[in-house]
Amino acid sequence: MDNSNNKIGIAQINTISGNIEYNAKKIVQGIKNAEENNLDLVVFPELALVGYGLEDTVIRYPIIIEQNKKWVEEIAKITTSTTALVGFYDQKDGKAINSIAVLNNGKIQEIIHKNHYNKTEINGTTYKITIGDSCFEVNNAEVVINCNSTISKPDKAEKFETPYSQLARLISTPIIYVNQVGAVDGNSFDGGSKLFDKNGQVVVCAKSFEEDFLIIDPFLTSTEITTQPDNKEKTFSLDYEPDMERTYQTLIQGIRDYFNKTGLKRAVLGLSGGLDSTVCAVLLADAIGAENVYGISMPSKLTSTESKTDAELLANNLGIHFAEAPIKEMVDTTNDNLQTLFKSVEGKWDCRYKQSYTMDNIQARSRAVILFGISNEFASCIPIATSDKSESYMGYATINGDMSGGFAPIADVTKTKLFALARWLNKNREIKNAIPESIILKRPGAELAIDPKTGKTLCAEDALMPYEFMDEIIWRIENKHETYNQMLNSEFLYEKAHNISKEQKTEWLDKFYKRMSTAIYKWSIFPPSVLVDSHSISKNDYKQPITSSKIDYKGISTSEIQEKIKEF
Amino acid sequence: MDNSNNKIGIAQINTISGNIEYNAKKIVQGIKNAEENNLDLVVFPELALVGYGLEDTVIRYPIIIEQNKKWVEEIAKITTSTTALVGFYDQKDGKAINSIAVLNNGKIQEIIHKNHYNKTEINGTTYKITIGDSCFEVNNAEVVINCNSTISKPDKAEKFETPYSQLARLISTPIIYVNQVGAVDGNSFDGGSKLFDKNGQVVVCAKSFEEDFLIIDPFLTSTEITTQPDNKEKTFSLDYEPDMERTYQTLIQGIRDYFNKTGLKRAVLGLSGGLDSTVCAVLLADAIGAENVYGISMPSKLTSTESKTDAELLANNLGIHFAEAPIKEMVDTTNDNLQTLFKSVEGKWDCRYKQSYTMDNIQARSRAVILFGISNEFASCIPIATSDKSESYMGYATINGDMSGGFAPIADVTKTKLFALARWLNKNREIKNAIPESIILKRPGAELAIDPKTGKTLCAEDALMPYEFMDEIIWRIENKHETYNQMLNSEFLYEKAHNISKEQKTEWLDKFYKRMSTAIYKWSIFPPSVLVDSHSISKNDYKQPITSSKIDYKGISTSEIQEKIKEF
Repeated sequence: MDNSNNKIGIAQINTISGNIEYNAKKIVQGIKNAEENNLDLVVFPELALVGYGLEDTVIRYPIIIEQNKKWVEEIAKITTSTTALVGFYDQKDGKAINSIAVLNNGKIQEIIHKNHYNKTEINGTTYKITIGDSCFEVNNAEVVINCNSTISKPDKAEKFETPYSQLARLISTPIIYVNQVGAVDGNSFDGGSKLFDKNGQVVVCAKSFEEDFLIIDPFLTSTEITTQPDNKEKTFSLDYEPDMERTYQTLIQGIRDYFNKTGLKRAVLGLSGGLDSTVCAVLLADAIGAENVYGISMPSKLTSTESKTDAELLANNLGIHFAEAPIKEMVDTTNDNLQTLFKSVEGKWDCRYKQSYTMDNIQARSRAVILFGISNEFASCIPIATSDKSESYMGYATINGDMSGGFAPIADVTKTKLFALARWLNKNREIKNAIPESIILKRPGAELAIDPKTGKTLCAEDALMPYEFMDEIIWRIENKHETYNQMLNSEFLYEKAHNISKEQKTEWLDKFYKRMSTAIYKWSIFPPSVLVDSHSISKNDYKQPITSSKIDYKGISTSEIQEKIKEF
Repeated sequence: MDNSNNKIGIAQINTISGNIEYNAKKIVQGIKNAEENNLDLVVFPELALVGYGLEDTVIRYPIIIEQNKKWVEEIAKITTSTTALVGFYDQKDGKAINSIAVLNNGKIQEIIHKNHYNKTEINGTTYKITIGDSCFEVNNAEVVINCNSTISKPDKAEKFETPYSQLARLISTPIIYVNQVGAVDGNSFDGGSKLFDKNGQVVVCAKSFEEDFLIIDPFLTSTEITTQPDNKEKTFSLDYEPDMERTYQTLIQGIRDYFNKTGLKRAVLGLSGGLDSTVCAVLLADAIGAENVYGISMPSKLTSTESKTDAELLANNLGIHFAEAPIKEMVDTTNDNLQTLFKSVEGKWDCRYKQSYTMDNIQARSRAVILFGISNEFASCIPIATSDKSESYMGYATINGDMSGGFAPIADVTKTKLFALARWLNKNREIKNAIPESIILKRPGAELAIDPKTGKTLCAEDALMPYEFMDEIIWRIENKHETYNQMLNSEFLYEKAHNISKEQKTEWLDKFYKRMSTAIYKWSIFPPSVLVDSHSISKNDYKQPITSSKIDYKGISTSEIQEKIKEF
């Protein structure tokens, strides 16, 4: 064994699920690059050839597996002295199995299936080549290679890198961790492939949220001590700064890849002068280019002059296109039509609400009709759903209205985090302060209804509860799995600064759980979005049947259960 | 051992996911019923206490597990001499585990975890109690009990009962199969719990799609030979008759349970005089009661007089409510608004379509605005999405238009099957011929646009391809996983009766795959629906990333791959 000359390339590429030709081109280019650099070995991400995230799509279309096998055989033929590790789907007992092909000297030398690992010798060094979060037990290899797919999460570094670091130290063997980069629908893979030395220190790290080609010597060691996470219990905080750069990168990659990978080019969105549509506009301008974004101000009779001027100012600052399309006539015509109809329905159904959201929703839906109209009339253009995470949790969004669209960029960003993001964008983008201060300062509200108490347009916090309180409930559910009673009986950050009664807290908690239960249906029809947080509600992460809306989140005591059983 | 007096109750109940109190009441009543009948044993379905289908909801809300454990302990206290097998979530190493509690004499006697089975003795007989599709290997028990959850599918009897029958014969032991009944969102459990004797014959079978309480002697045998399925290769057929009763029951249970379990009562739908909305109206009337269904005719200037009269006649025949709400003014106002806007967008974006679907979609969206308006104004009411499966596959449905709604009853029924269902309904419902013959005879078309060739409203088959051909492609994808080329090179049923050129067939296949690829996004935002077929596209069954829309379903040859690699 001569370790002095080991040179390994990590080809951290961004693939497209199912687009084998596109991925194969990147792999061939990576192999050529590696050969030119006289590398011993070049490693591609998990399932690089076929693209990640297809899951049961390959059962439905077995031709995908057939084709990727043909391609890997032909790619093998271009290899010479550099060994290439190419992730693909092999077949075993008629089933697709996540595999790595070891290509060298014009041939497939070996095929490694997930969870079935032996040692592989390449240029005198023995490697254990593993896939995903599978068994890592020691195998007397000199180097462990792990092709994995880990999603960008706020606490990823702590939850994820630590086990790698610990394991490397435990087995006293360097680990090469090769991650995906790029987004597959809502899932954002963040790259950052790494070499851990046998002491568990990070020696070298590839770029995050970008393709990269890293050349490493697996036996290099680092003298820098990799920071270990503190183990103190996490609590909810409004200090989002440490996670802002990652949040921004995740959103930008998620938007850009969704557009690129589906062939979309343009986005149209309503600019209300509020925070949600504002942040969406900034992100879109950065992700797909300002010239491809159209902001439409669609004032109703409830829209303030300030909202209109804020929207136009924002568009000018960003350099996106801007137009105004008042909705008053559409709303009036629809309303006339509906009021006549309601009278006849009322004769048959004795269940008309005294107060309804009908008028609010007509406005939101009229706006969506305009945005979808533009997307139907202009090529490769989608309307944007601007709902944020706090309001999605509350079902505080209109079906076929603001929650509809081809993509929902900020559906996994809570309102308090959005405020922080807006300030961060103003400070960190090349063009500073693109977001008018008045937008950040105003209290969120959809300007869809008048508050009878004040005579002004209703603010969301008055209809719901303070965002700071709401976002802490969400945080506790997602990160702590706390129950209603645990929340009731522990102090919220909001309570430190505001004196609220137990009755008030109970009212807010009750409202939260009630609204959340009826929002499950809305989550099920939500447009695709970028997942940013841990443990989000989504089609990818936590799923919940719509018909489970009657869950008792409070729970009852044993004696209450006994009473109920007696009555059954 | 004295087998002469074994009496076992199968309590085939319909539970609600997460509604523990509701389910506990049914379990307590079942236990009392069993005690009154002096049964040795009463068996409830898998996860009966907590309800089926929660999956990772219990990770997010661990209180559900805590509560169901408290409940099972209290339910145990009411048991006396009859043993009760109650499905619930136990915990092991902090994880929820699908389990059965053996309750008797006021106590939990034993807890059986999925995949960890021993013998259980009850009143002198030894049982092996198993959960789901888990290991069944022989265990010298006298009776095997299997609590399972199997979904209603066209070929369920063949694919599912046969292994039970074969296994019973192989181990020469009776098997009691206890299935769920009721729908959990799209999944329909169809009951039909059974006793297989040691020769593999079905001795007794509970009702399908209904709750049932069956009292059986597990050692009874049957002299009737259970029909074995033929093994001949299945082909696409337009003879839907053998599956019609099951299809109808699946749809009715799916609709009814969705409404009941979420607390909904009323439905409003657009009646176009076409087949889709017609069949939806009939199913809704049967599932939730005609008085709770409102049909709205929403004619545009393209709507024929016949469509309007057909819609009204249908409503009268069904006894559902009916109103008319012309959309001409809404469409005109919207169109005026949009045309002005398009002119200004056109100045910035040089990509306006020469021909677009904008006008078609404005009509569909105006109708949805009306239906959603009614659902916002009247309590417990949802609008119905009337899209069928053939058109969903083609993306031939308008976002925020006809494909939007609180529920989509027929989204998993193809058009040719819908025609068969319409005729079946006319023949088999108590009130015969509720569906006017003219509706069944007319060619489907949304009456949204004029065909320039004929000057008449465009029919769907002219814009797409014959439904019979389209539905066979769908059938082959779902049931055979065939590739494009396999389809091109084998004869379709449609080709037997019609002389079509290879060019024509190629054109239709190309159009199908192209449209299907771009429809993935629409599937992702589709309202909840009833799954009827095997292997449907849905959030429950086959899933596909939206960003995988560039899959090459045809595949290319090895030499083509070689050419491409040279060019990379």
